[in-house]
Amino acid sequence: MRIAYLGPEGTWSWHAARISYPGSSLVAAKSFTDAIMMVESDQADCCMLPVENSVEGPVPEVLDLLLSTPLLIIAEKMICIKNSLLSYSDHVKRIYSHHQALAQCRGKIRRYFPNAEVVEVNSTASMASSISAGSGDAIIGSRDLASLYGLKVIIENLNDYPVNVTRFITLGNAKIGRIGENKTTISFLLTSDAPGSLVEALSLFARRGINLSMVISRPEKSDPGSYRFFIDAEGDISDPPMAEAMNGLKQLCRDITIKGSYPKASWKKPDGC
Amino acid sequence: MRIAYLGPEGTWSWHAARISYPGSSLVAAKSFTDAIMMVESDQADCCMLPVENSVEGPVPEVLDLLLSTPLLIIAEKMICIKNSLLSYSDHVKRIYSHHQALAQCRGKIRRYFPNAEVVEVNSTASMASSISAGSGDAIIGSRDLASLYGLKVIIENLNDYPVNVTRFITLGNAKIGRIGENKTTISFLLTSDAPGSLVEALSLFARRGINLSMVISRPEKSDPGSYRFFIDAEGDISDPPMAEAMNGLKQLCRDITIKGSYPKASWKKPDGC
Repeated sequence: MRIAYLGPEGTWSWHAARISYPGSSLVAAKSFTDAIMMVESDQADCCMLPVENSVEGPVPEVLDLLLSTPLLIIAEKMICIKNSLLSYSDHVKRIYSHHQALAQCRGKIRRYFPNAEVVEVNSTASMASSISAGSGDAIIGSRDLASLYGLKVIIENLNDYPVNVTRFITLGNAKIGRIGENKTTISFLLTSDAPGSLVEALSLFARRGINLSMVISRPEKSDPGSYRFFIDAEGDISDPPMAEAMNGLKQLCRDITIKGSYPKASWKKPDGC
Repeated sequence: MRIAYLGPEGTWSWHAARISYPGSSLVAAKSFTDAIMMVESDQADCCMLPVENSVEGPVPEVLDLLLSTPLLIIAEKMICIKNSLLSYSDHVKRIYSHHQALAQCRGKIRRYFPNAEVVEVNSTASMASSISAGSGDAIIGSRDLASLYGLKVIIENLNDYPVNVTRFITLGNAKIGRIGENKTTISFLLTSDAPGSLVEALSLFARRGINLSMVISRPEKSDPGSYRFFIDAEGDISDPPMAEAMNGLKQLCRDITIKGSYPKASWKKPDGC
């Protein structure tokens, strides 16, 4: 299997793909969009993308991209994120990282390095190869980057919250059958914004005992002030209660996009924690 | 009035504060946290912060900060965001901006400047003073930055979506009375994650004809996989139907934080569009 991921080597996406698909060939993409396009153009069989983090919340770009591709979610995996501070020396003057990692470590950066300059970069892993010895430059990222680029681990775990987990999804071309317990990811845009429309939509699932393990709203970009919802409903799309709920949902929505049924993973026992 | 905002001069927060509080004295803060701390320590009377954007969605840091301060929301204002490309010359090699602005202009950057290097920075306004003539450096931000720093407007509106509106809130110490129609911002954490708990909570409002103009979930950081909700309910906290709904909500939640009742603004007629 060829798995596309947000490169280069050493990103959390690389780490997640290595853990999840040992023995597969990993293909580095320049962006989340490129990773999806690689699968669409058969340069990869599937791609693995981060969709939400237990501290920072959704990855908005990935949620929005789900609506722009016919690819379906075929798997999910929770990955433990330990953000380390890496540098050539202990004397840290400047800290580079992606804004998600900076956000996850905001408190400790302020406490330990109140005078360091903090610089947001697009890709921490790319930055790892360009910081130089003696400059006081440091990066925050996976400790894999230390061995890949010959850096020292200055602080092993800089996370503000002890548990920091990212949920990754794998997108592919084919629907997959049922293996164990499935969940189904659905995006919908309600027709009406009258009081109770959202309640009516969500009760279709609740009334049938279907748990929603994710409820995230995204702005509907063409209509300021209105929201599209992304939900994960526990069950397979072919289960009779789910099929009934979906029939009801069609009556209430301007748009429904089903992004696939796939085996559910647990937030409680992430890999690598 | 002394209004704290995320500085320096030329940020969208500065723009919003100038439009909303003409004649007031504006106090630049280094971060959203600092803006709040300035009000708490009486260095400012209130602070104005962006809370959600019609394209990019919530500003997670600001939502999370609402829970860490006793300050209440006393006003809201929708501000039209026109992201301009600014530089010394038309020959653009490198584009700097905050990740929210880069996200809002992603498509046009790729189309017009496929070979430009895109660099995320913490503050576009700070960057405006450090790019130099002849370097090919450009920034994306408010066109106010052009006159403040002597830059040229290369592209007036780089937004991917024609309408791009940011909702700003003003936080202050005092509750305010009712002036026209109010809305109330509430954050709650459900006690149970059983199917139907969220529906039960939201129906308390729907059943009483109370519209929810915002529904946003944030991860509950101490408990991966669970969510806290932020809602805007149309009405004043002292309205009898709202008071009844809140009584019901207390039975269902581990935590409820009321962030204030204040006059509602409309997404449809933002200032400056």
